[in-house]
This record gives sequence, C-alpha cells and structure tokens, in this order.
Amino acid sequence: MKNFRLTIQYDGRRYSGWQRQGNTDKTIQGKIEQILSRMIGHAVEINGAGRTDAGVHARAQIANVKLNTDRTARELMAYLNEYLPADIAIHACAEMPERFHARLNAKGKCYCYRLCDGNVPDVFTRGYVCAWETRLDDDRMREAAAYLIGTHDFRAFSSVHKRFKKSTVRTITALDIERNGKELWIFVQGTGFLHNMVRILVGTLVEVGEGKRAPQSMPDILNSRERQQAGITMPPHGLMLEEVFY
Amino acid sequence: MKNFRLTIQYDGRRYSGWQRQGNTDKTIQGKIEQILSRMIGHAVEINGAGRTDAGVHARAQIANVKLNTDRTARELMAYLNEYLPADIAIHACAEMPERFHARLNAKGKCYCYRLCDGNVPDVFTRGYVCAWETRLDDDRMREAAAYLIGTHDFRAFSSVHKRFKKSTVRTITALDIERNGKELWIFVQGTGFLHNMVRILVGTLVEVGEGKRAPQSMPDILNSRERQQAGITMPPHGLMLEEVFY
Repeated sequence: MKNFRLTIQYDGRRYSGWQRQGNTDKTIQGKIEQILSRMIGHAVEINGAGRTDAGVHARAQIANVKLNTDRTARELMAYLNEYLPADIAIHACAEMPERFHARLNAKGKCYCYRLCDGNVPDVFTRGYVCAWETRLDDDRMREAAAYLIGTHDFRAFSSVHKRFKKSTVRTITALDIERNGKELWIFVQGTGFLHNMVRILVGTLVEVGEGKRAPQSMPDILNSRERQQAGITMPPHGLMLEEVFY
Repeated sequence: MKNFRLTIQYDGRRYSGWQRQGNTDKTIQGKIEQILSRMIGHAVEINGAGRTDAGVHARAQIANVKLNTDRTARELMAYLNEYLPADIAIHACAEMPERFHARLNAKGKCYCYRLCDGNVPDVFTRGYVCAWETRLDDDRMREAAAYLIGTHDFRAFSSVHKRFKKSTVRTITALDIERNGKELWIFVQGTGFLHNMVRILVGTLVEVGEGKRAPQSMPDILNSRERQQAGITMPPHGLMLEEVFY
C-alpha cells in the first residue's frame, strides 16, 4: 500500500464544493475518486485538507490517498491529469510515509480573497475576483483586521445555525490586506476555519472599508457570538485556498 | 458630433473575432455596435485598430466611434459596461479630435502569445495560455527571432491563399521571448500584421524550440514566400492583443 500526497488546483465555479455528496459528480473529491476508483478497480477514498465550499477555488489543495498500485507518483499524476476535466489539475504528487494524513496533519491554511473595488474589473480574472462598485478604505480595513488576529471565539463569523457543542474557538495567525493595482487581496491565515468563516470575515471588513462599521467594533462582534452582528457572506468566486501548511 | 476613443478588453473564446460579419451577434464589434445603436436610435459603426481573429483576446483593443450625443466619455463607458456581457469590458473612454481614427492612426501593435511548455498548466489561465507538452529551448527561439526582426516580405508567414496584389512587406520592431515561471511569453511588436502572421511566426519559433528547425533557416523561409515553408498556425486562445501605439 502506497500513500500519495496530491497537490490539487481547481476552478471551483462548476462544482458544488470539495466534499463528495452521495453519488454526485459535481464535487472535486468525487471527480478525483471516480478516476482513481476506475484505475484501481474498487472504491477509493481521498482525504482533502480543506473542505472548500461550492464555487470556491484552490491553488494548492492537499489530499492524500492510499492505493495498492505499482504506479510511481509521477505516473499517478500523469494518469489523473489525463482524465481530469480542464478545470481540475494535479500539480504535484509524492509518495509519503503511511501515517501522513492531509487533514489531520495540516498545521494551518492560507486563503486569499480577491476584490476589484471601484474600477472596471479585468475580464480575464472575472471568475476569481469579486467586483465591488465602490472604492474601499484599506487602511480602515487593516485597523479592523488587527482585532481579529489571534485566538478568539469566531462563532459570530460562522454560518452554522444549529446549536452545536464543538468549540468555535479558532486562531488566525495572519490577516494581510494588500492593494495590488486595482485589486484588494485579503490573505487570511489560520490553524482552522469554521464554515464560511473567511467569507464572513471578509464581508465584515468590506463593510468597514465602506465606512458602514467602525474598525473598533470588531471585539463587540466577537463577544456577541451572534452571526447577525457580523457582516455579509461574500460570494464564493473571490475566494481561493492558497496553501496548506504542515 | 463627438469622436470617442474606446479601450476595450475581451475574452475572445466565445466570439468569431473582432470584425462584424453580417447580422451575427458573435463578434466583439457587433456586440458593441448593437448596444450603441440601441442607445442612439440608428445604426452606428465603430473602427477597431486591429481585427483579431476568432478566439483571440485583447487586453487593450482601441476603437473610435462618432456619436451625436450629450453623454460624456465617462457616461458612455458606464452605459456600455452596463450592457456588455461579462467577457467584454470598456476600460477607458476619451473624447478625441474629430480626425482621430483608431485604425488609420495606429502606428503599431503589440501582441503576446503565452505558452506553458512541459508542465501542468494552471487551470485559472487555461483560456489564455496554450499548453505545449514538451519543454522548448527558448535560447534557440531567440536566435531564430533575431532573423525576423526588421522589414521583410512576410508572405510565407501569412495564411492568405489567393494570389493578391497588396504588399506583404511588414516591419517587426521587436520580438521578445521571456520565460515567466513555467510559461513562455512571446511578445511580437510591429507596424502591421498579415492574416494569422503572429500565430504562424510563433508556430515556426515553437518548431525551432523543439529542435525541428534550425534558427538559421528563417531567412530561407522568408525568401520562399511560401506558406508551407513556415511552421504551424498556433491555436488562437494563446494570443492576446496587448497594446496599440499611436
């Protein structure tokens, strides 16, 4: 039995997210498992590091898969790329020790949210950048971001509705906002994320950038632990899973 | 009567090229004229600087249009962007002197052809980069490119089949090949181009990069004036009209 680590890039627009849902073909995990299962001759399961939502992209999602095969990592990568659709690609493949698990061993992740604010967006990146009509005040946004870095209960920034017992405490290790020509790139790095957390964090920062919220209001939102105190959930297509750390 | 200069960006994949063809809606020119005609209330014609082929993109195509309107350049741009599909955008609009003509006044153009050679291409730019299985020798390609710079009869590098009396002499002012990570970017700058000329020039350089042709064979191809002596016509989606010079 070999244990392979796959580095997977995908354009999430056509998919209902990373995680397999029953027999649907419209997930990234499902697509890859389907090809591997056909190659091996029985059902195969892969473990992805992060469960990206419907419409969210990944530059370097990491997954591992255990396979009883003679193929080398290089051959496996070539096989997958031959059968994968044009919007999913394996960019690296390596054989790992048996104990390596893409999700359980992940130490952190970095997401990037791209916005084009107050300018006509480029047509070439329209699937990966959220167009925002007004120019945002990125200095204000940085001021607000500073309150969010660190270990906090991020329940207000999560779209889980049911009462749940699992901890909603997470650690954000970095939150950088860079102006890149006519775009704002918001990098959020942390050890783990709640459902929709990055998109709600960005939505709240955008409202700060519009002047609708004060940067100093972030601690109150955190302390409220109420979803309705935070900002909007940004659309998925501006979000990219950039990197997984081990 | 005002004379507006439009800076137009488009993703050429869904279109049968720049130039209007009868009543078809599948050209960039046709799309823009349709919106302007509806706005003005009668047929409007726009002059584009370069007639890009089916599937070819433009970062900054230039066109001019004469309109009897009270709208400012800024208002015209906003109007067009409201009605244009997501793969065409107006990035600038300015009022010009009456004599300005986007095609007749153009002094030169710069195209860029993007190739990803010998690596798994990025999924995010797959519509704008041509995937090439083998790694190309860009030093050899630069050596060949040097023979093509200057004023030559480029008939061999053109896909006009019928005998024609117009001159096929053109001037290439620069031909730069840059390696950009796992991509090759080939910039071709000149005063004017024959039909398919950039794609055939790049196809010939690619065959040099593969080792199938000698860099020193370029003068013989030029002198032959025969299309079959030159290399393949590269697919359109790797080509971008980058800039028009005035």
